[in-house]
Amino acid sequence: MDERTTIAEELRARVGRSAFHRSFGMEVDEASRGEVVLGWEAREEHLNLQGLVHGGVLATLLDTAMGLAIRSALDAGRRHVTIEMGVHYLRPAHPGRLRARGRVARIGREIAFADAEVIDRQDRVLARATGTFSVGHERG
Amino acid sequence: MDERTTIAEELRARVGRSAFHRSFGMEVDEASRGEVVLGWEAREEHLNLQGLVHGGVLATLLDTAMGLAIRSALDAGRRHVTIEMGVHYLRPAHPGRLRARGRVARIGREIAFADAEVIDRQDRVLARATGTFSVGHERG
Amino acid sequence: MDERTTIAEELRARVGRSAFHRSFGMEVDEASRGEVVLGWEAREEHLNLQGLVHGGVLATLLDTAMGLAIRSALDAGRRHVTIEMGVHYLRPAHPGRLRARGRVARIGREIAFADAEVIDRQDRVLARATGTFSVGHERG
Amino acid sequence: MDERTTIAEELRARVGRSAFHRSFGMEVDEASRGEVVLGWEAREEHLNLQGLVHGGVLATLLDTAMGLAIRSALDAGRRHVTIEMGVHYLRPAHPGRLRARGRVARIGREIAFADAEVIDRQDRVLARATGTFSVGHERG
Repeated sequence: MDERTTIAEELRARVGRSAFHRSFGMEVDEASRGEVVLGWEAREEHLNLQGLVHGGVLATLLDTAMGLAIRSALDAGRRHVTIEMGVHYLRPAHPGRLRARGRVARIGREIAFADAEVIDRQDRVLARATGTFSVGHERG
Repeated sequence: MDERTTIAEELRARVGRSAFHRSFGMEVDEASRGEVVLGWEAREEHLNLQGLVHGGVLATLLDTAMGLAIRSALDAGRRHVTIEMGVHYLRPAHPGRLRARGRVARIGREIAFADAEVIDRQDRVLARATGTFSVGHERG
Repeated sequence: MDERTTIAEELRARVGRSAFHRSFGMEVDEASRGEVVLGWEAREEHLNLQGLVHGGVLATLLDTAMGLAIRSALDAGRRHVTIEMGVHYLRPAHPGRLRARGRVARIGREIAFADAEVIDRQDRVLARATGTFSVGHERG
Repeated sequence: MDERTTIAEELRARVGRSAFHRSFGMEVDEASRGEVVLGWEAREEHLNLQGLVHGGVLATLLDTAMGLAIRSALDAGRRHVTIEMGVHYLRPAHPGRLRARGRVARIGREIAFADAEVIDRQDRVLARATGTFSVGHERG
């Protein structure tokens, strides 16, 4: 397998081990070192009173896309923990198929930066996020 | 009923009409004009691989607490839509009973500001957020 | 003059009328509809105790780059006022020539979104920002 | 001298050594462990075209108030570097005397969180910020 395939497989295995991610229903569509694309379908339970995807749900997608992008670029033995995240809601998110693209901006010795966007089928950006992550070495 | 009770009842009815909020399982514990406290219990499906509450789930709680705090202070006929939200993760969130307190910082003619925090049973702040909301008049 | 030149001239005139911008010393290097590049040189008075450019100074550059990018895409008679701004500091900013690139992400009826980055002479991103602006019609 | 006086004196000495802070003109009005109040007067050169204090200038005040609040609570030998900062502009800031209050939210082993607000003479909050700081040990 080439590096892309390996990275995607590792992230899929990771997502598959997490009760949260299985329940949320997201899939790793593409992955390379420092960048991932997730696929996800909004169901009835993700909609707010206006029939739009709840902002917290989009934040979850964005956080996961950033976290996995960072994971894809980290060596084994390093953790990635979200320190903070900022989300902008650019357009209403209607039910249906969505994608979330996460990208590493910089990985330092202790801190990493990433951004992500949620895109609809017409390639419009519905929401964007930036985030800061703690990426020091795991403590045994 | 006094004003507090009325506000709490209105928010409970609102939350009860939303498929998202029913599925998420949050309750309106307290509410007054401009401030709400939500109660919520982290279940297995809310945990990440480390066994901690997923950051996106905490963002959902914080967004909802801010949104309902603003709702509690708005006249009928005005909308409240999240424009942006920033979340800081101060401490790991272990499973169990959590509360989220949302507060209005300012409501203007078109824009409102709020903040919120997630607190555990020992009253430690686990996560905090600030948010900006569009609160103009609904369009018929 | 073509559109690019006109936009750049209008932004330069605007910056030239502002005591703040003259004192700060920034120049409009390039501008097109929805995107601007500012040039700026860090002087002694912009440095913190470590001899690096102060974070507030970088925030000022980023805010200005975003504001002018939005201005460049707005019709006359509309205002642009910063509602909120988030800044990430990716790398230390040493004294010398810096550029700030601002870009519109979306301009709505009342709200606009933009982002910006500060870049050094080696094209490294030192700081990035996202911002939200109020862009309704001016009130006579 | 009691602890409060000592902390305030140390921060004043620190501010006095910085070309940036001297030029900016801010003063340490009050300081205790984890909290500081700065005083500052907006001059002509701080105003934008509308005659209001520029958002980047308020961001500078907020960043400094947060940074000094963290400094006041850190042991010697630890650094404090801003990783990110989010600013909300709640009300227009007119020229005149302003104060900025900075407060520590949490200081961890490597990361610290703080918030700050800019207040006018009528005690109205004009702008608020939250920030994340790197506070590990200095490297010799």
